[in-house]
Amino acid sequence: MAKEISVAIFGASGYSGEELIKLLLRHPNVKIQAITSRQHAGKTIDTVFPRFLGSRLSFVEPDVSKIAPNVDVAFLALPHGLAAEYAEPLLSFGVRVIDISADFRLRSLSKYAKYYGQEHPAPSILSEAIYGLPERYRGDIKGANLIACPGCYPTSIILPATAILTAGLAKTSGIIASSMSGVSGAGRKESIPLLFAECNESVRPYSVTGHRHIPEIEQELAVAAGVDELRINFVPHLIPVTRGIHSTIFMEPARDDITVEDLYEAFQAAYSDESFVRILPLGAAADTKHVTQTNVCEIACFYDQHTNKIILSSAEDNLTKGASGQAIQCLNIIFDLDETTGLL
Amino acid sequence: MAKEISVAIFGASGYSGEELIKLLLRHPNVKIQAITSRQHAGKTIDTVFPRFLGSRLSFVEPDVSKIAPNVDVAFLALPHGLAAEYAEPLLSFGVRVIDISADFRLRSLSKYAKYYGQEHPAPSILSEAIYGLPERYRGDIKGANLIACPGCYPTSIILPATAILTAGLAKTSGIIASSMSGVSGAGRKESIPLLFAECNESVRPYSVTGHRHIPEIEQELAVAAGVDELRINFVPHLIPVTRGIHSTIFMEPARDDITVEDLYEAFQAAYSDESFVRILPLGAAADTKHVTQTNVCEIACFYDQHTNKIILSSAEDNLTKGASGQAIQCLNIIFDLDETTGLL
Amino acid sequence: MAKEISVAIFGASGYSGEELIKLLLRHPNVKIQAITSRQHAGKTIDTVFPRFLGSRLSFVEPDVSKIAPNVDVAFLALPHGLAAEYAEPLLSFGVRVIDISADFRLRSLSKYAKYYGQEHPAPSILSEAIYGLPERYRGDIKGANLIACPGCYPTSIILPATAILTAGLAKTSGIIASSMSGVSGAGRKESIPLLFAECNESVRPYSVTGHRHIPEIEQELAVAAGVDELRINFVPHLIPVTRGIHSTIFMEPARDDITVEDLYEAFQAAYSDESFVRILPLGAAADTKHVTQTNVCEIACFYDQHTNKIILSSAEDNLTKGASGQAIQCLNIIFDLDETTGLL
Amino acid sequence: MAKEISVAIFGASGYSGEELIKLLLRHPNVKIQAITSRQHAGKTIDTVFPRFLGSRLSFVEPDVSKIAPNVDVAFLALPHGLAAEYAEPLLSFGVRVIDISADFRLRSLSKYAKYYGQEHPAPSILSEAIYGLPERYRGDIKGANLIACPGCYPTSIILPATAILTAGLAKTSGIIASSMSGVSGAGRKESIPLLFAECNESVRPYSVTGHRHIPEIEQELAVAAGVDELRINFVPHLIPVTRGIHSTIFMEPARDDITVEDLYEAFQAAYSDESFVRILPLGAAADTKHVTQTNVCEIACFYDQHTNKIILSSAEDNLTKGASGQAIQCLNIIFDLDETTGLL
Repeated sequence: MAKEISVAIFGASGYSGEELIKLLLRHPNVKIQAITSRQHAGKTIDTVFPRFLGSRLSFVEPDVSKIAPNVDVAFLALPHGLAAEYAEPLLSFGVRVIDISADFRLRSLSKYAKYYGQEHPAPSILSEAIYGLPERYRGDIKGANLIACPGCYPTSIILPATAILTAGLAKTSGIIASSMSGVSGAGRKESIPLLFAECNESVRPYSVTGHRHIPEIEQELAVAAGVDELRINFVPHLIPVTRGIHSTIFMEPARDDITVEDLYEAFQAAYSDESFVRILPLGAAADTKHVTQTNVCEIACFYDQHTNKIILSSAEDNLTKGASGQAIQCLNIIFDLDETTGLL
Repeated sequence: MAKEISVAIFGASGYSGEELIKLLLRHPNVKIQAITSRQHAGKTIDTVFPRFLGSRLSFVEPDVSKIAPNVDVAFLALPHGLAAEYAEPLLSFGVRVIDISADFRLRSLSKYAKYYGQEHPAPSILSEAIYGLPERYRGDIKGANLIACPGCYPTSIILPATAILTAGLAKTSGIIASSMSGVSGAGRKESIPLLFAECNESVRPYSVTGHRHIPEIEQELAVAAGVDELRINFVPHLIPVTRGIHSTIFMEPARDDITVEDLYEAFQAAYSDESFVRILPLGAAADTKHVTQTNVCEIACFYDQHTNKIILSSAEDNLTKGASGQAIQCLNIIFDLDETTGLL
Repeated sequence: MAKEISVAIFGASGYSGEELIKLLLRHPNVKIQAITSRQHAGKTIDTVFPRFLGSRLSFVEPDVSKIAPNVDVAFLALPHGLAAEYAEPLLSFGVRVIDISADFRLRSLSKYAKYYGQEHPAPSILSEAIYGLPERYRGDIKGANLIACPGCYPTSIILPATAILTAGLAKTSGIIASSMSGVSGAGRKESIPLLFAECNESVRPYSVTGHRHIPEIEQELAVAAGVDELRINFVPHLIPVTRGIHSTIFMEPARDDITVEDLYEAFQAAYSDESFVRILPLGAAADTKHVTQTNVCEIACFYDQHTNKIILSSAEDNLTKGASGQAIQCLNIIFDLDETTGLL
Repeated sequence: MAKEISVAIFGASGYSGEELIKLLLRHPNVKIQAITSRQHAGKTIDTVFPRFLGSRLSFVEPDVSKIAPNVDVAFLALPHGLAAEYAEPLLSFGVRVIDISADFRLRSLSKYAKYYGQEHPAPSILSEAIYGLPERYRGDIKGANLIACPGCYPTSIILPATAILTAGLAKTSGIIASSMSGVSGAGRKESIPLLFAECNESVRPYSVTGHRHIPEIEQELAVAAGVDELRINFVPHLIPVTRGIHSTIFMEPARDDITVEDLYEAFQAAYSDESFVRILPLGAAADTKHVTQTNVCEIACFYDQHTNKIILSSAEDNLTKGASGQAIQCLNIIFDLDETTGLL
């Protein structure tokens, strides 16, 4: 008999929330018990997202004591800082928490404080958190109560780069990632720089130094490389697409005689059995268009003889593999479902 | 009394040709005597470019012997290889040639052969050619008979990077440029990958290694650095904008105690008197939207303490400063006009 | 035990073909036996559509005698004229044909000749064809061997307008439809007017008079109104979106005392039980964004007191409800499956 | 000797204000003395519009008593209601007022009250106002102190439709306009429905009945037709372009034997001498792409024999001919300059 998993979505009125709802409504084993939004509490879902006209869902206040007793899992699509505040009481009710925010991704409290500009709101439970990247932490995710889903940019960089680092093919210094993101990644908020008339026909980098996703990427690359610490450059660009992230990653070969076939084999070794990593044939580069509305991260490798550099290319949908789809992939793992359930 | 300069445009049916016509029709000192197109010879201009309805211009066959006697200047907006074939007879008629193609940009015949896959079609006149980047070769352009206008990507990389190299602030190794271009840069040609439905919601790198603009960039950066040779990584990406190029450039500091103010001063030293280079205030990054339909290249500098890297950001309109506007800037220099004539 | 339906897709290298493949690969009861393309025969599917990397499918020649014995159903995503040539032999093999082209939509041979500029290629089987709009012909579709799926524009106009005509609320004269379509509707073909740089920042009508979809719309509106003939104005516009059609339809009220509630009730009467028609609440207008990548046609009604006009608004995805999704909805009906199978 | 006209721009921080500044900075006879913005007072212009980096302009408070003594002309790019409040004191200082808002467009106070939901704020000066459409009111504009520039949609409808009505070719009933506008037309304001991620891949009508531009269009069509009143349908749609408006207009022929040549001649009679109206050849339709960043309104005519309907197509840039360019065209007329000064 099919399992039924009761879930709540906290902070369901943004783009990740909308995507979670869309995907979970199709998930054969999930029942959405509650969707919360302080701003829209009391409204039916279609007043905010007309596409859901006909659904019985309405936004409610994020009242943990009312919601927690009725759910197995809570997805947190809340701003960082706030997510941690909800995670604690939810866990104490025995609810499993899958957090899409940044609150539980960093092992280091000092880096959290440095990059997010505030002390960590729930340090006592931080050690319970598992980084929700199934391709690297599947085993830990299975038994976890608190999942910290990776950021959208980090997924697109960690997946290709860790395969190369794990295989010992690249140095841990000199790693540079130039990424381009669609505008939905900036959230559904009233903001002049995100207006159509501002973003259309525009490409611009932002947070050229010190973007908040840097420590998370560095942490995971260091784990893969087996080093305590490494440092990367990461420059994100905003481009006029709605959904999609592309990353171009430059790495230094660890030895002299590297070939593109070595890189390809490292990808195969890491991901040939994965449902949601697509390794492109040699010569092809990743394209966001191929992965829009899917949970796939597409990766490609190049070796530039001219400068002796490894160049990786990756593409994903920032709202699916970069957020909500990945969260559901984690849910499937926790509940022993086929990992692709509801995601194809 | 105002000068009148008679010009012809060879290969006028592409996007650079269209932009040249648009700009030259407004130029107070220029008279367009002929626009050529094998494919459209005999048609009035508005049958190809409806915006020019009412203009007296018609496409003619590219017959040098007929056209050359009546013009002072010929702009070549032809494919590489073909441009060189026209340049020779035009020069022998005493016509000044401003070439937008790649044919006369490279000093090295072997690099031309390697990157363009053919022997150079007119090696005897190559040494006459001046690289048409006014901010670096203004003096030479003045007396030149043959101008090789830079490619669209190179302008966006050479302008910011040479200022830093000239000031001795960066090493000549480890230079990496990640660029994004609008689709008009690929030309006005029947091509499925350039269809709206293929490019929209897509971002993808191409020519990840070995792009044809690499030797041209390397040549000019080496000149600025005073070295014989240097090598760079250059990865272009196609993004869904019509016009515009953005480049993010990573460089290694030449010494330990560099500051962002040093970088800014190098920009000021190089370009504070330039009409078409806009140095952004510290903290700001370049945005294609600010320069669309202008001849301005906007540049910005960053210093990343975390990794000890110089990061430059630049934006230009690929059809103006990246092609036709720059060609007209060269024309103005040759004919002793104010450099901004017809370009504001 | 679940049925397994073997299908072939003829002309699978265009956008409708790609969408059919995408949807059918997820359909639990369908097995794709063959996909044909003269141009790409012999290539694996991912060489044309990289998103399908990993699929076992390859394009084959459209050889009916080889393919027909192994399939229950053939989808024809071929150009008009050609589709009819394949339909005849396929039917004679006992294969059910679901045609996405225009060949079997018109009852009148003379209108086919007039609007398509050629004699009908298979008049003998035309009378067998059922117009594949499930919301109006569900019963007939069930037993049909030859289904003529509606065009993309017609679906968006016929669904809202026939509900009003059937209810006797509008006159049969003075009907005007102004429609806007995404660029994928024009097909995946080498064409300068369909380039990104031509379509972006552009909106333009085309076929202002005499568009080929007019007779099909008129035919179906006449059936709904119970008249022999009626005439409409239909002006399509090309807008810079990839997928989506919006139609705004103006109609004259049949009587004086009409209210918007009457219109809404007509919609309810026609479609309240339909899975793929979404009736918007009063005051809301249809938006292509709400239906992209779904098989839903969203409809809305307005009554303008100022001029005494009925105004309808509809939106659909031109590749789903406007083509391939609708074709699969027909397949589900034929094989007694839940109509939404593979389409949610 | 060239005139110098001193101008102020009130409400200069929106898209129309930005366009006015951009155009006026190039105008050879204009000196911008002041640009006002309550929100940005004290800031240099480039902090709001980075493209103007290097300009000496700063935003100031909209203090009429300080600004008026130093300027000949004030452009009002303020919201309706507020514009009228500034117009009165400016006029009393002897400043000529060119208003881009809706405050002085309607002759009827009751229609203003009905469509704008408030009593007219300055009824005493309303009768002084001249409708700032040069192609129809050039003579009156010349001596006017108060110019009411047309709305963006109205210009695109009034220009083609009045030519047909003036020639007596169409009835005054049954006029229907279906228009599509770029997103900049909605203004530069914090608004979720105007976000890139909401507008991209979306087309949707709004204000399907009762849009505020209706009475203005009806007023001007009635004048052209020589009738007291007429009523039209006008449905605007928001499409994902930044700049541009296209209107498709359906009209009933006034007599039976009308031809498309009659329509074309009416266009010629009305506009053959106009610098900013482009009459397209028979068969061609208007395209916003042809007029972006120009002050041209492009018009085309069709006659549909099938339904006996006149169909007009027009395109303009909503920020130029639809707002700021038209305002400058009026300025040129007032000051006896060539009408195209600063607009080519």
